[in-house]
Amino acid sequence: MTERTYAAGQAYTYPLIIKKLLQTALVNATDEEIVYRGEQRYSYRDLNTRIHRLAGGLTALGLKPGEVAAVFDYDSPRYLECFFAIPMMGSVLQTANWRLSTDQIVYTINHAEASVIIFNSDFMPIIEAIRPALTTVRKYIMIREGESTADAFRFDGEYEAMLQSADDHFDFPDLDENTRATTFYTTGTTGDPKGVYFTHRQLVLHSMSLAIAAGSYDNEGRFRSNDVYMPLTPMFHVHAWGVPYVATMLATKQVYPGRYEPKKILELIRSEKVTFSHCVPTILQMLMTDPDCRLTDMSNWKVIIGGSKLSKGQAKAARALGMTVFTGYGMSETCPIISLALPKKYMADWDDDRILDVITKTGVPIPLVEIEVVDEEDRPKPHDGETSGEVVFRAPWLTEGYHKSPEKTRELWRNGYLHSGDVGHIDGDGYLQITDRIKDVIKSGGEWVSSLDLENILSQHEAVLESAAIGIADAKWGERPLMLVVLKDMFKGQVTEGDLKAYMKQAVKEGRLPGYGVPDNIVLLDALPKTSVGKLNKKQMRLDFTGPVM
Amino acid sequence: MTERTYAAGQAYTYPLIIKKLLQTALVNATDEEIVYRGEQRYSYRDLNTRIHRLAGGLTALGLKPGEVAAVFDYDSPRYLECFFAIPMMGSVLQTANWRLSTDQIVYTINHAEASVIIFNSDFMPIIEAIRPALTTVRKYIMIREGESTADAFRFDGEYEAMLQSADDHFDFPDLDENTRATTFYTTGTTGDPKGVYFTHRQLVLHSMSLAIAAGSYDNEGRFRSNDVYMPLTPMFHVHAWGVPYVATMLATKQVYPGRYEPKKILELIRSEKVTFSHCVPTILQMLMTDPDCRLTDMSNWKVIIGGSKLSKGQAKAARALGMTVFTGYGMSETCPIISLALPKKYMADWDDDRILDVITKTGVPIPLVEIEVVDEEDRPKPHDGETSGEVVFRAPWLTEGYHKSPEKTRELWRNGYLHSGDVGHIDGDGYLQITDRIKDVIKSGGEWVSSLDLENILSQHEAVLESAAIGIADAKWGERPLMLVVLKDMFKGQVTEGDLKAYMKQAVKEGRLPGYGVPDNIVLLDALPKTSVGKLNKKQMRLDFTGPVM
Repeated sequence: MTERTYAAGQAYTYPLIIKKLLQTALVNATDEEIVYRGEQRYSYRDLNTRIHRLAGGLTALGLKPGEVAAVFDYDSPRYLECFFAIPMMGSVLQTANWRLSTDQIVYTINHAEASVIIFNSDFMPIIEAIRPALTTVRKYIMIREGESTADAFRFDGEYEAMLQSADDHFDFPDLDENTRATTFYTTGTTGDPKGVYFTHRQLVLHSMSLAIAAGSYDNEGRFRSNDVYMPLTPMFHVHAWGVPYVATMLATKQVYPGRYEPKKILELIRSEKVTFSHCVPTILQMLMTDPDCRLTDMSNWKVIIGGSKLSKGQAKAARALGMTVFTGYGMSETCPIISLALPKKYMADWDDDRILDVITKTGVPIPLVEIEVVDEEDRPKPHDGETSGEVVFRAPWLTEGYHKSPEKTRELWRNGYLHSGDVGHIDGDGYLQITDRIKDVIKSGGEWVSSLDLENILSQHEAVLESAAIGIADAKWGERPLMLVVLKDMFKGQVTEGDLKAYMKQAVKEGRLPGYGVPDNIVLLDALPKTSVGKLNKKQMRLDFTGPVM
Repeated sequence: MTERTYAAGQAYTYPLIIKKLLQTALVNATDEEIVYRGEQRYSYRDLNTRIHRLAGGLTALGLKPGEVAAVFDYDSPRYLECFFAIPMMGSVLQTANWRLSTDQIVYTINHAEASVIIFNSDFMPIIEAIRPALTTVRKYIMIREGESTADAFRFDGEYEAMLQSADDHFDFPDLDENTRATTFYTTGTTGDPKGVYFTHRQLVLHSMSLAIAAGSYDNEGRFRSNDVYMPLTPMFHVHAWGVPYVATMLATKQVYPGRYEPKKILELIRSEKVTFSHCVPTILQMLMTDPDCRLTDMSNWKVIIGGSKLSKGQAKAARALGMTVFTGYGMSETCPIISLALPKKYMADWDDDRILDVITKTGVPIPLVEIEVVDEEDRPKPHDGETSGEVVFRAPWLTEGYHKSPEKTRELWRNGYLHSGDVGHIDGDGYLQITDRIKDVIKSGGEWVSSLDLENILSQHEAVLESAAIGIADAKWGERPLMLVVLKDMFKGQVTEGDLKAYMKQAVKEGRLPGYGVPDNIVLLDALPKTSVGKLNKKQMRLDFTGPVM
């Protein structure tokens, strides 16, 4: 036992550390399963043993407390093992975004000063490409994916072999709860990726609050021990929204899909009886438009939609397929969950259209989160459902700053609030509505036009697959809205820019949009520019569609 | 704003303090009600205003941060206000047990060094009696109960008048989360009452864990936002098991019963549609045997039973009335909840008799709680469902010690574990079963006989209302069991000691009891000696029934 000794009369100092979440899981898990692509499955008892072996293996390899181990993998049980073992041994888990450019990947690994890389054999080309430029990595461990014949001998070990050679028991220490547990990088549309980081205490409190938000309020979006969980957000992306920690604490069955393939995902929903997931609108759209969706009973599937705006049109289509959908909101900087757009109990008898309005809002803060909208001097604005300002937060799980970037940290944290860079308003019931990114707001003739409002209205046109509104410099009005639109295949050549403009004007007549909000131009495209995590890349659009400047 | 200022780039240090629970409530409460005896009701918004006014009033009266305010009241919304306002202003809430002897009350108030007393006018005789002996109390505030004509002018104010004269807004500080929030005294059967104490952090984490335990696991004992909560454990007794904090955080409707009167309680269950409570077996028995119980639909009522053992016989009777009952376990020293005896999901299709065995166990630890059974040298024993030892805990909400009693604290905390003084075993599924108090175990011929086992078996005899087993000194065996029994009224004069002894011998035949466990003597009584909180007073019984000593 390396555990500290306690004198008689000395109370145990209970730290909020990830080890304690796993202990909670093991009391409740019994024989619940953790599944990879329907092909491999093991019990929580096995998970525990593998976590101990992983820590033993990494220690044998030389990974020390405080050092960083970067992981490149799909959503998998191995990644879940890393979520626990690496922080629990006192090291820092870097969840690496393999969708970035190799230059960006090199930057993030070197900037985080990772000592070890664990990577899926599918990503060997990336690892080979970046390896010469990595300045701090000492050891490389390959996870062999499926039947891959990739040669592990060029590296320092193979994941399963490393586990097999390690001991069943690792003596995980009682860490200080403020020990750093995870780090990852967020790419804005400008500058180098920024590193955020989270402590054990933050991840434990985020897990507990999210469990309460999703479990203790009686509503349709619940997530409880009887659910079957499958992430559809990359685990490198803000801890897959923190849900793997919650699922493990609650000892639910967990299903990991590996590489995202719509047919495979739908098959897993059918065969493993998946009931709870989370994803971005693009993934939801991909699933809904796959023919196999019609073969799948989606009526037990609850899914949090985040990353981009869940449009009313998409929510309606999802509900028509029997799904339970609702918005979840957060950022890389916020661990991430800040709010969930779940109906309150007095809405139980509301009709479908009003419920659609509720579930497509940004949401109500989960327990312990405080949200304000503030003016330029950080003075709170009223919660009247109308007055807009920058959205700012307090919660026990917000990143303390950007790693080694004091200047960017000073922009993030001002007057004791984390500044989201989002614009929105809060109503009397506590529902936040984000209306735009501060930098995406279109300023026309002294009025603010919300690009999200424009996109939301157009999403309800039957022909529109997706759309983006941006501001174009204008001599008279300062800026004017331009909308870029992708039509659904079946409407291509049938619906014109003029039809869509007429639709927007109809929204003005119905009082849903101010007259100055109707875009001067609508452009039909085959696809919209996206960032590496699938968000609309408005910076690119503004570059592509620079309007005439006087 | 007295709030500290934050420099640019400085992250907000989010403390786990009671103020944050209330903020969470207010986001979700909307127009939910808090009710007193069906006679008074107000909204959560009113609760918030009254908490602010109470803090303002107490501050005006001179109560300072760090000072203690003692409350003598029934379970009431005023008490709930004190649960929040007093800790939130940085003072310490002393929940005073008005059932103690006046000598004991004087001891606890002086020992805690209370500065202010807030008391219900029904308790004026107690306050008058103890007042001359109180050495630290400067101010007395009377809560006028009902139509009471008690004269507040002899005191320093009346509660409602104090609130009316205070401001709607009190500037509650961001306290250090380790600030002491509450204190109260626990009476053993020997020595002076012992003071335990809890911090803001402990109460917040206890609330969150209890919410997850009762909300996130899909089973019959759930407690969620749609429930209507009514405590039936005194609020002076370990924060009414901490449930008022959970109910407030979840923004459930709350019903406070005032003085416990079975007919009133049953009326409130009917009229306010109460769905969730907690009580000791004696209260449950009182309700079940009241004729009005037959007029009341108990099928929506879920109740945690704690304080004493929930017998299988009583649980069966409660289920026959439609109630959902299960054991909750904890101690004054543990805030209090340690475990709940809820069935796990794989037990969904178990028959009634097996479920009765589960719900009358001591239970599974709630999230973050660690339980072990240990030998005399604090070495953990196996979790095999058989091997007994002293039950010890770790959790983030255990008292750090006994107030100003380092010697007793050294008995409580040894080797980093809180020692419960209970004997029990843990099975492979994590269910703890307490079998006795260490000091109540009957040691017969080198074997340990569990007094609770004996009582549990006899509880299943149709004639038995309650029973107690104690050890009586015996020349040959060291100790031998003696049982004291109270029969149900309808069986008095019908059932004899011999009948009960025959029943116990039958249990031996059925393998449920070792032969040496059959008591040599069974004594029929009209009532069993109880402590001030309604527990069996075995110390008194042992004094009353001292056997022949060689």
